[in-house]
Amino acid sequence: MLNVNRPQIYKKPMDRSIFSQIIHIRSYESDLYHEATLTQIANYLQEAAGRHVIEMDLGISVADLIAKGLGWVLTRMQIQVFEMPQAYDTVQLDTFPTGFDKYYLYRDFLLKQAHTDSVCLQATSVWAVIDFAKRGIVPIPDFIKQMPLTAQPLMPSPKGKIPKIGQITHSRTFQVRWFDLDQNQHANNVQFLNWAIEALPETWLRANQAKRVDIAFRNEALYGETIHSQVAIDPEQITSLHRLLKDNQEEIAQVQIQWAARPMPK
Amino acid sequence: MLNVNRPQIYKKPMDRSIFSQIIHIRSYESDLYHEATLTQIANYLQEAAGRHVIEMDLGISVADLIAKGLGWVLTRMQIQVFEMPQAYDTVQLDTFPTGFDKYYLYRDFLLKQAHTDSVCLQATSVWAVIDFAKRGIVPIPDFIKQMPLTAQPLMPSPKGKIPKIGQITHSRTFQVRWFDLDQNQHANNVQFLNWAIEALPETWLRANQAKRVDIAFRNEALYGETIHSQVAIDPEQITSLHRLLKDNQEEIAQVQIQWAARPMPK
Repeated sequence: MLNVNRPQIYKKPMDRSIFSQIIHIRSYESDLYHEATLTQIANYLQEAAGRHVIEMDLGISVADLIAKGLGWVLTRMQIQVFEMPQAYDTVQLDTFPTGFDKYYLYRDFLLKQAHTDSVCLQATSVWAVIDFAKRGIVPIPDFIKQMPLTAQPLMPSPKGKIPKIGQITHSRTFQVRWFDLDQNQHANNVQFLNWAIEALPETWLRANQAKRVDIAFRNEALYGETIHSQVAIDPEQITSLHRLLKDNQEEIAQVQIQWAARPMPK
Repeated sequence: MLNVNRPQIYKKPMDRSIFSQIIHIRSYESDLYHEATLTQIANYLQEAAGRHVIEMDLGISVADLIAKGLGWVLTRMQIQVFEMPQAYDTVQLDTFPTGFDKYYLYRDFLLKQAHTDSVCLQATSVWAVIDFAKRGIVPIPDFIKQMPLTAQPLMPSPKGKIPKIGQITHSRTFQVRWFDLDQNQHANNVQFLNWAIEALPETWLRANQAKRVDIAFRNEALYGETIHSQVAIDPEQITSLHRLLKDNQEEIAQVQIQWAARPMPK
């Protein structure tokens, strides 16, 4: 039989502060240019973060926290793209926490070509802990602060607010779908990035590549809810500002994307 | 570093007629019950088929065919689910062609738990070759018929038409999105299954699990097109019949799904 990658026997190494994973990028995870999509990249990053806290075996995984009435919440993510990997590329994704303050955990990501070490992108993220009974964010519990920290940040953590959207140039409406839902019974927040980008016109998406994405998550989206995705494009700056609203005008996310003109096809 | 699965050195074995692959099911590939979604399963199957014809190195991969002005087209797929794998399960997916006739190639799939060999699901599919210049299906070229065939079919190939939909009980409208597009500049046909299922009501999806899916692909869907997803549920038979139409009433897919009541949560 061809190409059987047997599951490897798991060995727990000494340094648990960095999690590293090989990913074979699948054809259907790429766009019409054969490049991995930003939403798939965001999926890889969140999956690696979840996998890391499971593998650390410190009692701080999603399941461990749920048993305590707590949950991890991603509040902010910035992704800087150098050269987006392509379908069938083999990449290595490293992730590690870089520090805490009272309410937030900071975690970075590095995605590179596995065979050349050429860096595809880096990312930084901010996580909080929610107490389901109190219905809000609580200070990071001490047992979570046991996480080992050895790595240095790759890039500055996002500070300050994403600029308010000005004159809306494009908008589109989405409904939260059944397959958007994750085990928390709300839309996987990677969909937020999808809804934001999908409101851009086809001509913009064909002409430009996202180079830097900054997304702030404000609230959850439930099955069947209507999401209004609004965009203000600044073609001078090759920048787009986005917000996602529910019918009641509640904001669920803000996004800022810096784009670069796509090279002409060879 | 934790859990680095280094890419394995590729060895080309003697028997190229079966392709086998280990898949770690990711959390975001599962639904709110933590089970892999049918659309992700369909993605795995198509990816493995594509990967197989690349690895066979017989000049019959998607890229090889495009260079000849030809393309692979999936025309029919049946999936029979025994026990759907869950997020974080490690599964083994085997795929192999089982035969040809003048216009069609038949290919089967077997997905099982990697550690126990317990079978999760089996599937069978029918593929044709399209000639882009002639804008239609052509007899399977002889160079494709060089594919080695050693495995026996797992299940009967689909014969006959999917029953015509009767009284429509539910419908929903979708627009083809940017991230639905694949490198052929049309919607990845896995989205067809997604659109079909998403038209079912939430109560149905919460109460039932898909056990057998039969999908016939009739036509392509392009960016921005409106897709009308219509369903006739027969609650007596626990069966749903689906069709996907464009604005001009052109049918792009028909689907029949047999469901089973979901076991009550423990």
